[in-house]
Amino acid sequence: MTYDLIIIGGGPAGITAGIYAARQKISTLLITTDFEGQIARKSVDVENYPGFEAISGMELIQKFEKHLRKQKIDIQIVKVRETKKMDSVFFILAENRNQFEGRAVIVASGADPRPLEVPGEKELIGRGVSYCSVCDGPVFSDKTVAIIGGGNSGVEAAVFMKDIAKKIYLLEYGLELTADEDNQEKLKKIENVEVVTNVALQKIEGKKFVDSIVYKDRKTQKEKILKVQGVFVEIGSIPATGFVKGLVDFNKRDEIKINPKTCETKTPSLFAAGDVTNVPLKQIVVAAAEGAKAALSAYKYLQKF
Amino acid sequence: MTYDLIIIGGGPAGITAGIYAARQKISTLLITTDFEGQIARKSVDVENYPGFEAISGMELIQKFEKHLRKQKIDIQIVKVRETKKMDSVFFILAENRNQFEGRAVIVASGADPRPLEVPGEKELIGRGVSYCSVCDGPVFSDKTVAIIGGGNSGVEAAVFMKDIAKKIYLLEYGLELTADEDNQEKLKKIENVEVVTNVALQKIEGKKFVDSIVYKDRKTQKEKILKVQGVFVEIGSIPATGFVKGLVDFNKRDEIKINPKTCETKTPSLFAAGDVTNVPLKQIVVAAAEGAKAALSAYKYLQKF
Repeated sequence: MTYDLIIIGGGPAGITAGIYAARQKISTLLITTDFEGQIARKSVDVENYPGFEAISGMELIQKFEKHLRKQKIDIQIVKVRETKKMDSVFFILAENRNQFEGRAVIVASGADPRPLEVPGEKELIGRGVSYCSVCDGPVFSDKTVAIIGGGNSGVEAAVFMKDIAKKIYLLEYGLELTADEDNQEKLKKIENVEVVTNVALQKIEGKKFVDSIVYKDRKTQKEKILKVQGVFVEIGSIPATGFVKGLVDFNKRDEIKINPKTCETKTPSLFAAGDVTNVPLKQIVVAAAEGAKAALSAYKYLQKF
Repeated sequence: MTYDLIIIGGGPAGITAGIYAARQKISTLLITTDFEGQIARKSVDVENYPGFEAISGMELIQKFEKHLRKQKIDIQIVKVRETKKMDSVFFILAENRNQFEGRAVIVASGADPRPLEVPGEKELIGRGVSYCSVCDGPVFSDKTVAIIGGGNSGVEAAVFMKDIAKKIYLLEYGLELTADEDNQEKLKKIENVEVVTNVALQKIEGKKFVDSIVYKDRKTQKEKILKVQGVFVEIGSIPATGFVKGLVDFNKRDEIKINPKTCETKTPSLFAAGDVTNVPLKQIVVAAAEGAKAALSAYKYLQKF
């Protein structure tokens, strides 16, 4: 069969798109590898999704999934390999060689934070290692933290943490920070931050929780240790868009460019929502709202026929 | 004291702005007449706010309020009468003659659906009378409904209801529908809709639930009865903006014009979010997301000093 709408992704944007599409009574298929993604990996409770004062990321996404499964919607748990458009129909090829057809598509496949890929990182996720200062920062009240990455997101994390943490180390691989002047000016006003440039992080250490990091001074090649209780990895993210190249335009962060009012991409009837897009706030409630918007735009598009 | 931020409004947008602002550790005051508003008056359960499969509007807004009250934030329950800006400080005058000062303001005072003001309407809210087809439509599966208002929102409600309701009456006061051509073309394709123009609704009847409406044919002056189980009032809404005139621009629907990326209005450091603005989707999750956006924009603005 040809679905009215195929949604790719099982995070807040994809799930909300699914809920809204099903309620519009259009035939909808949601394809996702799982219902976990970034939320389920969150290191601390979600405290900023309205309605839940504090809830683990895993619990929240399970509630979302349950909400979705209450709708009349088909769900396929599989990875999408490729998307093609012929005439006005999309063909979605999955890793298991199944193929699905839809008249409209919403890409909501999310973005993964770019990992450091150093020893200790993976092991200490949720125990001091975080990829989202706005989400997890408040937990590190009066603690010493390291932020890895001197771009805009790293510097913004330092600005965010300045009144929360006791002391902040901001580590940058290059000789200079790459953040905007505006951000760098703000950074200069922060008293409890120490910027360390030209360094390569070697490892993150700690038994139950993070207790230190080891970095190499790239000039002297000497290793140094910093005692920290938290590590914020702010070296960018990797939008999951491999299966849709050619059909959409990307910004320099590899995020899908959309019309912010409608979630439209450059391909008619192909929409995108959530962290996979160039919408700046990577927040759960924002991704959910974008999913609702994309579903109602897709619905509106389908009414034309 | 001068607050960093004053938020006006206690609906999803204002509450979410409050949660986000408090988490940024800026001194924040939220002023609202109550924590009810449109949500609490919803005629059926909320089924499209992700995370809650079905929850009464009242229960949901109570959860939001509880979430807000867990934050470090001041709350004043009072109606705002006037907002003035002098130098770079806002002075918010309340009905009880108290005055509050803030360096930034978020207007999130919502919009009320414009009522018909006919007998039976108020009494049957929540028992057949609804102001939101997208929210409440699915409840009227296989029922006969009347939509009052032949503008875009009324016609869009008919399009939305076409696969849900058994039969739809669309009533318009004027001689012709005022909806866009595009919408009117869609309407023509709907088989189960009957358009009745040049009519004035007289009353809504029903004991426990709506069972009929009475309208007057404006040409013949004769009264007619239609048996319906649901009435959707789609004659526009009234944004609550009386206290902020002069500081913001309005569109023709009296909604505050904002920059959709930042929630900025024409007055620096005055932001607006949710149903009071010209953001097209009047949905709970969208209002919440806009509140988050406004709070983070206000925070960013305050960092400049």
